[in-house]
Amino acid sequence: MARSVGILLAIFCFLLGTAAADCNILKEKGKDGLQITLKNYCEAWRMNVELHNIRDFDVVPDECVSYMGKYMTSTQYKVDSERTIHESIVYLSTSCNLKKDGTDAWIFDIDDTLLSTVPYYKKNGFGGKKLNLTSLEEWMSKGKAPALQHSLKLFNELKSRGVRIILVSSRMEHLRSATVDNLVNEGFFGWSSLLLRGADDAHACKDIQGFKSDARKQLISKGYRIWGILGDQWSSIEGLPSANRTFKLPNPLYYSA
Amino acid sequence: MARSVGILLAIFCFLLGTAAADCNILKEKGKDGLQITLKNYCEAWRMNVELHNIRDFDVVPDECVSYMGKYMTSTQYKVDSERTIHESIVYLSTSCNLKKDGTDAWIFDIDDTLLSTVPYYKKNGFGGKKLNLTSLEEWMSKGKAPALQHSLKLFNELKSRGVRIILVSSRMEHLRSATVDNLVNEGFFGWSSLLLRGADDAHACKDIQGFKSDARKQLISKGYRIWGILGDQWSSIEGLPSANRTFKLPNPLYYSA
Repeated sequence: MARSVGILLAIFCFLLGTAAADCNILKEKGKDGLQITLKNYCEAWRMNVELHNIRDFDVVPDECVSYMGKYMTSTQYKVDSERTIHESIVYLSTSCNLKKDGTDAWIFDIDDTLLSTVPYYKKNGFGGKKLNLTSLEEWMSKGKAPALQHSLKLFNELKSRGVRIILVSSRMEHLRSATVDNLVNEGFFGWSSLLLRGADDAHACKDIQGFKSDARKQLISKGYRIWGILGDQWSSIEGLPSANRTFKLPNPLYYSA
Repeated sequence: MARSVGILLAIFCFLLGTAAADCNILKEKGKDGLQITLKNYCEAWRMNVELHNIRDFDVVPDECVSYMGKYMTSTQYKVDSERTIHESIVYLSTSCNLKKDGTDAWIFDIDDTLLSTVPYYKKNGFGGKKLNLTSLEEWMSKGKAPALQHSLKLFNELKSRGVRIILVSSRMEHLRSATVDNLVNEGFFGWSSLLLRGADDAHACKDIQGFKSDARKQLISKGYRIWGILGDQWSSIEGLPSANRTFKLPNPLYYSA
């Protein structure tokens, strides 16, 4: 039986073209006889990125690039993200005692929160190459990033409840026009504020988490109550002041500090 | 080709006995034609628990109990946990400028951080039943919880570097003796302090995160520098004051607030 399963597994892997990624045994451990496949290794890497145990990585491990590409274009990625949005909407519907006086606010990231950069990374090594900012910004300037459909659902739900939407992105000011066009074309419109990083922020070497914390500080000083943040990076969520609740979308492709 | 893969997938699922859990199509979505299996659904649930998007759950969704049981007894769970420990040791070796004067400290949870409660949950519905505290404490009082071997590696690494080890657990004081015996029998010894919840903490309805934050406050007031926390619950990691770094082990079985 064990042998027949093994043979079938091999055929299965071959047919699905996953022989290299999923089915090879990576190493065999002595003590507890633990056999680890490349898939085990790459899944553990991804899980530990999402747990915020792995930080400050420049690139996805070379041997996991294929795995990460598969995940980011998979049904699982969509279902994982959909669940994040579902939880945000449950929270919005059950726990937010909205003031409805124009001070209720929600913060969104843009990249890989509202708009997907996956088409860019698909053509640029799926996180396996060190970021070429010039090339990424050139792609962003075309304004062709597709919407993350589940996020659009939350965006519209917030709008319908009168919650002010604040977009806080690490994109630079010079991308403002392309970003606005891209967002609107993909169905995102009606926000109250779009905060991008100015030359000053970059020149002052302010990190992204600092930039985003400062943005929240300013919003709170203006009287906003920040009910929630939706982002794909821990730097959008951590740091003080925070929001009442935070929601993190999965993103194992890159790390913004 | 697509059909032959489908047939093979069915045979594969049947042989592996995962027909119900992994391979059934759960629902078909209209717009993008997204087909979701039960495995997709349960993986997304687990991922969103680890992302701290799903909070305060009493039980694992009934339909995911079998999936969660498989995960918690799988190689993947071990590899995921091993990676968390690996990252802790990398951090300890590269980023901690230890004072080596008896004030360097590291905090550990106990359950599902040093000792595994998986044998208990294996016999008690793998998170699918609401917690019966009496029954769990009865099991704990026997002192038979096995070590999480990778955590023992970090524990010993810290000891060898002269870092004081502080155990902060939501277990109650009446379990002290059984807990000490269990830890020592499994190789954990040489800690500086073992903080358990007294009757006072419980009577004051102090939540676990509050209890653990207070413990850190006291340690810092005594002059300790808390370099790291290793825990399996967000309530061990969140709240102020924090540590220099925190590391979260996976645990989708239960939620302690």
